[in-house]
Amino acid sequence: MKIHLTRLDSGFHFEATNETNNKVSIDASESIGGGGKGARPMELLIMGLGSCSGIDILTILRKQRQEVSHFSISLDAERETGKEANLFTKIHIHFDISGQIEKEKLKTAIHLSLDKYCSVAKTLEKTAVITNSFSINGAKDDE
Amino acid sequence: MKIHLTRLDSGFHFEATNETNNKVSIDASESIGGGGKGARPMELLIMGLGSCSGIDILTILRKQRQEVSHFSISLDAERETGKEANLFTKIHIHFDISGQIEKEKLKTAIHLSLDKYCSVAKTLEKTAVITNSFSINGAKDDE
Repeated sequence: MKIHLTRLDSGFHFEATNETNNKVSIDASESIGGGGKGARPMELLIMGLGSCSGIDILTILRKQRQEVSHFSISLDAERETGKEANLFTKIHIHFDISGQIEKEKLKTAIHLSLDKYCSVAKTLEKTAVITNSFSINGAKDDE
Repeated sequence: MKIHLTRLDSGFHFEATNETNNKVSIDASESIGGGGKGARPMELLIMGLGSCSGIDILTILRKQRQEVSHFSISLDAERETGKEANLFTKIHIHFDISGQIEKEKLKTAIHLSLDKYCSVAKTLEKTAVITNSFSINGAKDDE
């Protein structure tokens, strides 16, 4: 996998490009002198976790002929504070799904993704505890 | 840190949003049924590594009154193959910098970032060996 980044201004704004020319705008926060023109580096890891598990879950549900009409994912991540590098310690991921979906099939799909298939989860779990919850058609269920 | 993702189509295309409304387009590769409309989840981790270390290095060089006129970063990452989750095993990061920059100061900045300050590097090094090289004004130097 090859990734290229180019600095776009005199600050911390970078454009990252993958091998198929998809682009991501990245910047530091204004608190450390960035311009806020893009996602922050550590946010990209959490976006990677959400999308990685989302793709897994959609793939598994599709094989089980579950019909998904809406799917959104909310993540809340906590980091260490006051260290030289502040790693993630806790990440909660909530899946909000609508459609014709059996609860047990969704639970199995979530577990298969987070415990087995999702490479981002298996990477981030080296430093952080990852927990999850879900809603089906607006009805919340905590794991 | 809060991140929200919404599925945009009937496939795997997601839009991720951070708390300051910066957006990142994410999709699966066409090989697994995605539309190729965004970066892939594991690519976001490598983009995070490049930008995290880039921001560190620019910050350190600025404190040392080094003048940077151009800065780009190329990363090459290898993953496991054939497993249920395929984690990163090796990541090489090359910094291509131009300006009035003393070589030893750049070397120190790179080491401080990758070995100490960059939270993405300290996360990804749990599974991958991270190596680096750099060029100053087109002259390459291998670490």
